[in-house]
Amino acid sequence: MNEYIWGRNSINEAIKNNRIIEAYVLSDSPYIETLKKKNIPFKIRKRFELDKMSHNENHQGIIGVIEGYELSSVDDMIKKENGLIVMLDSLEDPHNLGAIMRSVDCVGADGIIYRKHHGVRLNSTVAKVASGAMEYVKVAEVTNLVKTLQDLKKKGYWVVGTDASAKDMYNKIDYRMNTVLVIGSEGKGISRLVLEECDYVVKLPMFGHVNSLNASVATAIMLYKIIENRE
Amino acid sequence: MNEYIWGRNSINEAIKNNRIIEAYVLSDSPYIETLKKKNIPFKIRKRFELDKMSHNENHQGIIGVIEGYELSSVDDMIKKENGLIVMLDSLEDPHNLGAIMRSVDCVGADGIIYRKHHGVRLNSTVAKVASGAMEYVKVAEVTNLVKTLQDLKKKGYWVVGTDASAKDMYNKIDYRMNTVLVIGSEGKGISRLVLEECDYVVKLPMFGHVNSLNASVATAIMLYKIIENRE
Repeated sequence: MNEYIWGRNSINEAIKNNRIIEAYVLSDSPYIETLKKKNIPFKIRKRFELDKMSHNENHQGIIGVIEGYELSSVDDMIKKENGLIVMLDSLEDPHNLGAIMRSVDCVGADGIIYRKHHGVRLNSTVAKVASGAMEYVKVAEVTNLVKTLQDLKKKGYWVVGTDASAKDMYNKIDYRMNTVLVIGSEGKGISRLVLEECDYVVKLPMFGHVNSLNASVATAIMLYKIIENRE
Repeated sequence: MNEYIWGRNSINEAIKNNRIIEAYVLSDSPYIETLKKKNIPFKIRKRFELDKMSHNENHQGIIGVIEGYELSSVDDMIKKENGLIVMLDSLEDPHNLGAIMRSVDCVGADGIIYRKHHGVRLNSTVAKVASGAMEYVKVAEVTNLVKTLQDLKKKGYWVVGTDASAKDMYNKIDYRMNTVLVIGSEGKGISRLVLEECDYVVKLPMFGHVNSLNASVATAIMLYKIIENRE
């Protein structure tokens, strides 16, 4: 199924990677020249039409049409050493998935796994927030997170979950091992069965009143700690 | 000026802190009992009316009315040692301000400073994303960031900016000093005049293709590094 994307970074990366199959632009869009040069078919549309396609988000005068997002398999992400895979357990907010994708790109991690038909999936909001990173970050949809973790463990991976109830601090673990980082859903955290597969459960220190980090923020702090530990 | 707030955490924190002066609820809202108990006046509204007030965001059946957000002064944030203030240089996205507020609460930092009438300000989107943290995190609006930094430096603060062009890595600085952490705008980073006031400029390591972190994510990684360094 084709999808719309917008946002300067998303459009630029998709053009660079020849993923735009068609575009809708304002008649005065500076992109028209590039589209002509790249032989990408485009149609002129009025601002209100583009507004509608982007659900009133800021589209900067161009909407790209790309083919449905390409998925990877878990096997594509497996490494012999210092592997780093992020597994999302029922995350719901596409903004969080997009932001996590950016962070996964920044630390050079190997991919993101989530459960098919539950919670987030790749869509245009994810693409916008991911700010171009969706072109590079591998994503695998699986039907069973527990079975996927068991398979990864057999292939030499260790599973690290984050949970407020953990005893170990996030910076007391040695991450110089093939690591699956499991992130729970925004409200409920990691589900019981997935938590049972974790070899380590860690927490971030909290000194405030509300003490709840955004899921994408917590993921990024963990990812940066892991790569710092591997330096 | 009064403002609407919604979202379970925001509503719960505002009720707890007696900040809700009136509420609009669905006739079957489980909040009605609490509102009665707390003597908070409320009116029954239909779902489409609440949808309109929350700009179609998920309001979970209740919209609270609170008085305009209370601001603090920079002086309220000053500490003798291990002070930690976040300064936002022209940040634009209210989602980012809300997420930063959550992180500032989590690490127990002393407050957030931004420039009046430029970029973000406190509003209901910030409150929703802040997930209750807005009740606790001090916020000061100032007219001149450079002058504010100069004043803070006279009071014993050191200014740390983050910029992709920096030479120093973020984890090579000793943060056991009163610190102002300066975060640049989403697109343009820290402005030249503010950058000139920085005693240190640091960067986060980047190993990907797009290599651009969300502003609230970068802020959180920095904040957690600072408090880890002070352990």
